[in-house]
Amino acid sequence: MGDKETRPIIGVDAMGGDHGPAVVVPGALSALAELAGCDLVLYGDEQQIAAVMEQVPGSGSAVRVVHCSQDIAMTEAAAAAIRNKPDSPIVRAMADLKKGQIQGVVSAGSTGAMVAASLIILGRLPGIDRPAIATLIPTVSGEILLLDAGANVQCTPAHLVTFARMGSVYSSEILGVAQPRIGQLSIGSEPKKGMELNVAAYELLAASGLNFVGNIEGNNLLLDPCDVVITDGFTGNNTLKLVEGFQRFLGGISQREDLSQEEKLAFGLILKYMQNNFSYEAYGGAALLGVAGVSIIAHGRSSSLALANAVKVAWEQVRADLPAKLTAAQS
Amino acid sequence: MGDKETRPIIGVDAMGGDHGPAVVVPGALSALAELAGCDLVLYGDEQQIAAVMEQVPGSGSAVRVVHCSQDIAMTEAAAAAIRNKPDSPIVRAMADLKKGQIQGVVSAGSTGAMVAASLIILGRLPGIDRPAIATLIPTVSGEILLLDAGANVQCTPAHLVTFARMGSVYSSEILGVAQPRIGQLSIGSEPKKGMELNVAAYELLAASGLNFVGNIEGNNLLLDPCDVVITDGFTGNNTLKLVEGFQRFLGGISQREDLSQEEKLAFGLILKYMQNNFSYEAYGGAALLGVAGVSIIAHGRSSSLALANAVKVAWEQVRADLPAKLTAAQS
Repeated sequence: MGDKETRPIIGVDAMGGDHGPAVVVPGALSALAELAGCDLVLYGDEQQIAAVMEQVPGSGSAVRVVHCSQDIAMTEAAAAAIRNKPDSPIVRAMADLKKGQIQGVVSAGSTGAMVAASLIILGRLPGIDRPAIATLIPTVSGEILLLDAGANVQCTPAHLVTFARMGSVYSSEILGVAQPRIGQLSIGSEPKKGMELNVAAYELLAASGLNFVGNIEGNNLLLDPCDVVITDGFTGNNTLKLVEGFQRFLGGISQREDLSQEEKLAFGLILKYMQNNFSYEAYGGAALLGVAGVSIIAHGRSSSLALANAVKVAWEQVRADLPAKLTAAQS
Repeated sequence: MGDKETRPIIGVDAMGGDHGPAVVVPGALSALAELAGCDLVLYGDEQQIAAVMEQVPGSGSAVRVVHCSQDIAMTEAAAAAIRNKPDSPIVRAMADLKKGQIQGVVSAGSTGAMVAASLIILGRLPGIDRPAIATLIPTVSGEILLLDAGANVQCTPAHLVTFARMGSVYSSEILGVAQPRIGQLSIGSEPKKGMELNVAAYELLAASGLNFVGNIEGNNLLLDPCDVVITDGFTGNNTLKLVEGFQRFLGGISQREDLSQEEKLAFGLILKYMQNNFSYEAYGGAALLGVAGVSIIAHGRSSSLALANAVKVAWEQVRADLPAKLTAAQS
């Protein structure tokens, strides 16, 4: 939390996500109602935002709106979009964060644009070479923090150690885990299993002073083998997508014609249970860790609930002064 | 099928897998009963095999046993084991395959030892630089062939094209798919998404003359996006393990204390349905494609049913003269 501000402000990209202001604005406002001592700024098309706010009783004066005349599409090349669209919500919000006018940014827009804007406008934290996307995955009896979930498709062993240090801080400071257990995602539990990257990272992690519990295999990942799992961004993103795909897979099976009436009912019940207990909505968004500011990337398909939780995640990181602690943990 | 033999013979490592002869031998014998025109040879400890065969009525003279005084443990370094244990079932069977005395080898033993023995003793097929492990994954309405599932942790773009050509032949010749759709597993559908490996492979695959349908993402993998999915062995093995872990995840959730009685019953029903319809047992084993002979790697946890199916898979590949067709497709 910057010294200039006693009351932290979270900037929200009102145009982000598959449904734009209609979903983002109500979500952000509901978070505001729950968070004591936090203010919001909505970035986006003034008229569209106003139209949604009219539908939400009593929201009129609660938040400030910063009108933006441009927007970045999900499909645009990220770095070019950041250069060419200075009046887009993501660029305006990041610039305000850089100036200390707000303390965190939340967007359900393009992940690439959020990563690029964070890197270009905020820059990296001292001592952190490669920021990483950290995301929570629901497990049998809790959750596991996975990073990198997609910011860096090619990594060095030293990058994986940076991710491990950041993940450990996040797990203890934000999730309240004492002595977080750090695992490396690989294709065998032995130190020599995996790519050259993994073999070298294993050695570094074992000597890092972190609570490193060794390699974790995919068939065990959702059974709570550790608190934080470290991997390169390609493997992390593929893993995250496969896990997300499981519910779609179950949904697909539930439509099969060979199911008995009893099985159909059972699938219906299970899908509902899974949706209630293993939904990405509860986590709100992924955090880009290692940039000089709080940067939260919400899912493109975010509901208002997910967006509200993403705002809360941003607020928790601001309150915990997370960026400063991430830097401190690298030395 | 070699010219010397009119009646093909499959060699089975009787000592392989978590339960050895007690599970392998009954499985192999039940396959034999179903396969017309195929003979078996069991490799392993004569006494242990005989003890199991005594329990199976009428099996006495049906198969030949080749006594082996050594065995390779799951945890042994593969290449060294192949050198140091010439009288192990895997090495003996591969040597007999090389000499044309048998036409295929099945083992539920060490995957590393099977790959090493196949490469060292059989060698690669002409035109194939890197053999790959091909495995079937059950999907919403069928199955998808994934390769490489773990033989090569580091690959070049050209290797991925080799895998694609082999997968296409396997899909059409063995699975009967006309014009198999080939996808590349990546973290975005666009041609430029993924590692440098994937970007370069995408271009080669698009120009390969194969029925390439582009990149496939993990959240879509089990929804039948294509018939064959190509990936490096690290990503493939991690993907396979995550998919296998999904049923363990469901099993773990079914034990949670917050479940209602109704939900518990529903989970029980669903787990049973999944086990019956989405079990690795039906597929029997993974095929090491690209070596000069039929080499089938059954799961270490194989049941007798899985082993029986692995023998059938071997037999189908021998009957289809698959190795010759894999070579022909590379030019």
